[in-house]
Amino acid sequence: MINFDAISKITYGLYVVCSGNREKGNGYVCNTVNQVTSKPVKVSVCCNKDNYTAELIKTTGVLSVSVLPETVSPEIIGTFGYQSGRDIEKFKNFDFDIRYGYRGVPVLYTDAIATLECEVEQTVDVGTHLLFVCEVREAALLKDAPPITYDYYRKVKKGIAPKNAPTFVESV
Amino acid sequence: MINFDAISKITYGLYVVCSGNREKGNGYVCNTVNQVTSKPVKVSVCCNKDNYTAELIKTTGVLSVSVLPETVSPEIIGTFGYQSGRDIEKFKNFDFDIRYGYRGVPVLYTDAIATLECEVEQTVDVGTHLLFVCEVREAALLKDAPPITYDYYRKVKKGIAPKNAPTFVESV
Repeated sequence: MINFDAISKITYGLYVVCSGNREKGNGYVCNTVNQVTSKPVKVSVCCNKDNYTAELIKTTGVLSVSVLPETVSPEIIGTFGYQSGRDIEKFKNFDFDIRYGYRGVPVLYTDAIATLECEVEQTVDVGTHLLFVCEVREAALLKDAPPITYDYYRKVKKGIAPKNAPTFVESV
Repeated sequence: MINFDAISKITYGLYVVCSGNREKGNGYVCNTVNQVTSKPVKVSVCCNKDNYTAELIKTTGVLSVSVLPETVSPEIIGTFGYQSGRDIEKFKNFDFDIRYGYRGVPVLYTDAIATLECEVEQTVDVGTHLLFVCEVREAALLKDAPPITYDYYRKVKKGIAPKNAPTFVESV
């Protein structure tokens, strides 16, 4: 038997993962970013197969991670977490600070406390999601503030997981 | 350039991951456990190739995850985090509450607030580490207490990453 309250004791942060290039870019809110090796520095990033960003990652082979702070604005979560890049131009329709880094990968600077620019090395099909194993090429600290945890997001900001998240739980 | 203070803004929990059977079992402290899909519930677990537990996971195809609380005892971290199962019998030499679950997988109950019993589905070689993608077969909530975060462990408990951790940083 699976008790979902047990599963929810797993700890996560909250990130915006972007991919694409100057012409076509997109990003989504992700809670499953993890370092997997230290030599070299590699991270794994989990992404729903239906996400528009997954297509861009597969096409370009690059992605960026912006670490969000506890003070992240609702606009960031609302735009990157609850809307699809198939329906709106997330970078162009809003006043976000997007810059272009390693191999042209778009990086969200608005609200970010740290950014990683990564090259995808392996793509693992885990079912509904893809796990991108990436080598980190650039990592910058923008602000030494506390990163938001997923727990803080749920409890203090009263946030819920969108349906494409690995941690989505259907309401009963 | 990689700024390690940027990398350290990634959020983690802290877990004991066990594998083996009644005859031979072992466990290690892990900070990289993540849900990767919700239908079915799957998690990824990252493990250094040199860890004795990695061998047991490869042999048995099962592993368990015990979520640790903020109040976790130093004995748990000391035994499972800083000693190798090649040198000591972690289950037998100490007074830990070890039980056997799905397909005989050993599970650490001492201090745990939640436990997961998992079947390994895919083993991904990511370099120095293996990423085990597992289907969760059993998940139980033992106590509704706050899980310890890796940040809390470092800041409040003054803990450091052992050299086999994905987040290990060499002192300079």
